[in-house]
Amino acid sequence: MNLILLFDDDFVTATRVKLSGRRLEHVRSVHRAAVGDALVVGAGNGRIGFGTVTHIDGDSLEMDVELDRDPPAALPLTLILALPRPKVLNRVIASAASLGIKRIVLINAWRVEKSYWKSPRLSPENLRHQFILGLEQARDTVLPSIETRRFFRAFVEDELPLLVGGTRALVAHPNAQEACPRDVREPVTLVIGPEGGFIDAEIASLQAAGCTPISIGERVLRVETVVPYLVARLF
Amino acid sequence: MNLILLFDDDFVTATRVKLSGRRLEHVRSVHRAAVGDALVVGAGNGRIGFGTVTHIDGDSLEMDVELDRDPPAALPLTLILALPRPKVLNRVIASAASLGIKRIVLINAWRVEKSYWKSPRLSPENLRHQFILGLEQARDTVLPSIETRRFFRAFVEDELPLLVGGTRALVAHPNAQEACPRDVREPVTLVIGPEGGFIDAEIASLQAAGCTPISIGERVLRVETVVPYLVARLF
Repeated sequence: MNLILLFDDDFVTATRVKLSGRRLEHVRSVHRAAVGDALVVGAGNGRIGFGTVTHIDGDSLEMDVELDRDPPAALPLTLILALPRPKVLNRVIASAASLGIKRIVLINAWRVEKSYWKSPRLSPENLRHQFILGLEQARDTVLPSIETRRFFRAFVEDELPLLVGGTRALVAHPNAQEACPRDVREPVTLVIGPEGGFIDAEIASLQAAGCTPISIGERVLRVETVVPYLVARLF
Repeated sequence: MNLILLFDDDFVTATRVKLSGRRLEHVRSVHRAAVGDALVVGAGNGRIGFGTVTHIDGDSLEMDVELDRDPPAALPLTLILALPRPKVLNRVIASAASLGIKRIVLINAWRVEKSYWKSPRLSPENLRHQFILGLEQARDTVLPSIETRRFFRAFVEDELPLLVGGTRALVAHPNAQEACPRDVREPVTLVIGPEGGFIDAEIASLQAAGCTPISIGERVLRVETVVPYLVARLF
């Protein structure tokens, strides 16, 4: 937790917050903060600054807060991701948030196991929690949005052509001829497939919707590795 | 498992292998392979090709193997990593192997908790297993080397100046002035600190040993995110 993310409910006055639970525990056990210490804080979807500890015990943490700068710039990237297995979903979501991705669409694909869609990790509460962990890690405040689309074909044929408008639309694909572009100066829509990849018919549909297949070389990388890899490559 | 990694003990003749255990289970349950199917295989530290299934049941998998191409190129990168917490060590090691990193040195630092050095995950058997998982993922065959150095100062003062010779030596540091270089055409030595970063005295020692601090921007990323991010940025 490199930044303590604050929400409306935390503010007891315009400049004072009172926290308990997970954030209090973290500040006590990891930061080991005492009265007078200044901690990096940020208001949810707002500015960043410092909170000066005015009270701390086992029940609550109180800080006087001064927010004086903007959060880091968002990535101009929409990430469309075949739903990963539940075991890695949390990590991928938190990592994407830490990288500054602000819009994620989780989609179905032939090689996405049906059972993945039943995972409790897809609950809005859990996804929001993973976003918060990623933002706290990266010292960001702006919560991403996340949507799910259970029907690949309906999404790719009806929604995707509109979604990619005004962006450079790419789909990562092991057999693609074109290399991943670098230093892209425009917004990007990036589609990443499931373990085992998209099937040929899915790649054809994505191409018809405006996405260019791009390769990242001979190596097949796991989704939690390929997301930061492609973000660094693109921007 | 995008490639089945084969070792000397697996070969019953020069071109035939017999497998059991984890690889057999994976081929049965995930690949669902039958006699006549061709699977991607590679010889440990050797070439890649196909194995044609000649026999498969609950006890063993036999394949006729033809190895006809080289594994993907290695990254010209030595990764020097402050020992991560045990929970993430396996993932970081497997991810580094999948990216093509062939030399890793795990070092101590002020903010590395002493207890991390007692983790059973540091056993040579476990580290080798994580490498194998990473290579199987990326369709590579060349096992990385990994070393551990419990004494930061002895390593940085005595070994590191020699190790960085002939390479571009960089240390990722949140407050660095210089941005991470791109498209580097020479070998790189990359040092990555612990959660919370290196302390100032450690950065000074690393600089004295020839490492240039480089920034990756305002965001503080987790080690499992920053390794693929920096690899993509550098090469």
